[in-house]
Amino acid sequence: MTFTQKLKKAVSLSSSLVCVGLDSRFDKLPAFLKTKSAVSKSIFLFNRAVIESTADIVACYKMNLSFYYGFGEEGIAGLKQTNTFLKKYYPWIPIIADCKRSEMGESVKMVKQEIFDWLGFDCVMATPWFGFDTIAGYLLDQKHGVCIYTHNSNPSAPEFQDLTLKNGLKLYEFVAQEITEKWNKNGNVFVEVGATYPKQLRRIRKIIGEEMFILAAGIGSQGATVSDLKGCFGFKHQRLLVSSSRGIIFAGKGSRSKQDYFKKVREATLKLQRDISLTP
Amino acid sequence: MTFTQKLKKAVSLSSSLVCVGLDSRFDKLPAFLKTKSAVSKSIFLFNRAVIESTADIVACYKMNLSFYYGFGEEGIAGLKQTNTFLKKYYPWIPIIADCKRSEMGESVKMVKQEIFDWLGFDCVMATPWFGFDTIAGYLLDQKHGVCIYTHNSNPSAPEFQDLTLKNGLKLYEFVAQEITEKWNKNGNVFVEVGATYPKQLRRIRKIIGEEMFILAAGIGSQGATVSDLKGCFGFKHQRLLVSSSRGIIFAGKGSRSKQDYFKKVREATLKLQRDISLTP
Repeated sequence: MTFTQKLKKAVSLSSSLVCVGLDSRFDKLPAFLKTKSAVSKSIFLFNRAVIESTADIVACYKMNLSFYYGFGEEGIAGLKQTNTFLKKYYPWIPIIADCKRSEMGESVKMVKQEIFDWLGFDCVMATPWFGFDTIAGYLLDQKHGVCIYTHNSNPSAPEFQDLTLKNGLKLYEFVAQEITEKWNKNGNVFVEVGATYPKQLRRIRKIIGEEMFILAAGIGSQGATVSDLKGCFGFKHQRLLVSSSRGIIFAGKGSRSKQDYFKKVREATLKLQRDISLTP
Repeated sequence: MTFTQKLKKAVSLSSSLVCVGLDSRFDKLPAFLKTKSAVSKSIFLFNRAVIESTADIVACYKMNLSFYYGFGEEGIAGLKQTNTFLKKYYPWIPIIADCKRSEMGESVKMVKQEIFDWLGFDCVMATPWFGFDTIAGYLLDQKHGVCIYTHNSNPSAPEFQDLTLKNGLKLYEFVAQEITEKWNKNGNVFVEVGATYPKQLRRIRKIIGEEMFILAAGIGSQGATVSDLKGCFGFKHQRLLVSSSRGIIFAGKGSRSKQDYFKKVREATLKLQRDISLTP
């Protein structure tokens, strides 16, 4: 099965477009999980509990690697245990590496070894800055996906991405056009777009068409709401993944028990799933 | 001492602008080093021998992290041992992480923990794609440097970097201008430029002025020669670092003994150093 087939199937099995961002930064984990545990074990136990509370109502999981690599060997071990657990018990759910890779040539092979073989992800994320070389090495391997940061959610994203080119297009529009017309030769490339810039999100949906997946970031903690996604869901309302990290995994903050904490995690996921399904 | 002071001092101590790229991909290491050794040990022994053959004639070392992370825990352990060795025996030589990081906000703190605290690098490299947020978190920490990929050496680099903007500038020119006028508030930001595009390299030197360091890539295996660097050396011929990886670390290929191999590594470094010093 190709990555894109797996993702479509996961959306349809879960009836959900929610992508839970497991940005499980060790120093922000609830205290009741950390006592007596090693760093890697705390991270894994937290992720396992999030996964067990949400697996039936999510389309995919996504990890920003920096939140694990920032804690060295222990952080990485926690990440690996999480992916091993997912592969064993939820093998149908795609796992996306939010890793901002921008390698090319020989080093793309190394990224594949790191992200796919060693860590066990199904999909890598890459910046477009260095051009087509950055992704050429991934295209023949349709079992894995490549998601390109096309317009980001952060405050300074427009600094370069929204520049107007001589031909009248904005830079992000040209990037979206290149991805659609030239890069996505084998159907395993899609785009990440920040919902904090709804106008740009709508433009990108127009450029890429109804079939390609969009991974929308910035909902929740970064200030965007599901209403910013209006009209961007693509084919059969099934081609826009909505990523939420802190808004879901830390939703239990202040809870007194593990049970309460993860009940709130599930509720936050269900609420997002419901809000998305009601957005036209 | 700030990162920039350390780099200037290292250039002056070694009378060299050579940056040796320790892209010591395990599967390409000479066979006589690999027998009987674990992956991490083979990597470390190779790097130690390169360092001991070149430390007096280089300005800095640079590692592309993907060549280590691609070999998992073992690759990372080899990298860490190398940096620990450098810090202990050659603490005055800056070490640069060629890691294409593009994090922002909270996750910049994580990159600092990974690259500076855990791995022991002096300098991080970041793409400009996400704008100023990507580097804002580094600026107060002048002990560490930030190098921005401004125009790359790979064949598809011009795809976006050379686009003409509505205001007449090329995108890479605008990036160089932003770095110079807005980003480099505290003197610890500099730029990476591919020597495979000598016209763009000269433009960037003009935009950033004579004082800022340029890290020039693409010499050797990628086809650029030192003559492509003409006129770009900056203040007192001391502000252009010339990076060479495969051309130096694999220069001993075909040698029958360790001694012969690393003699050729030193000769390749010396040749580059000499060629640079003769280029106007």
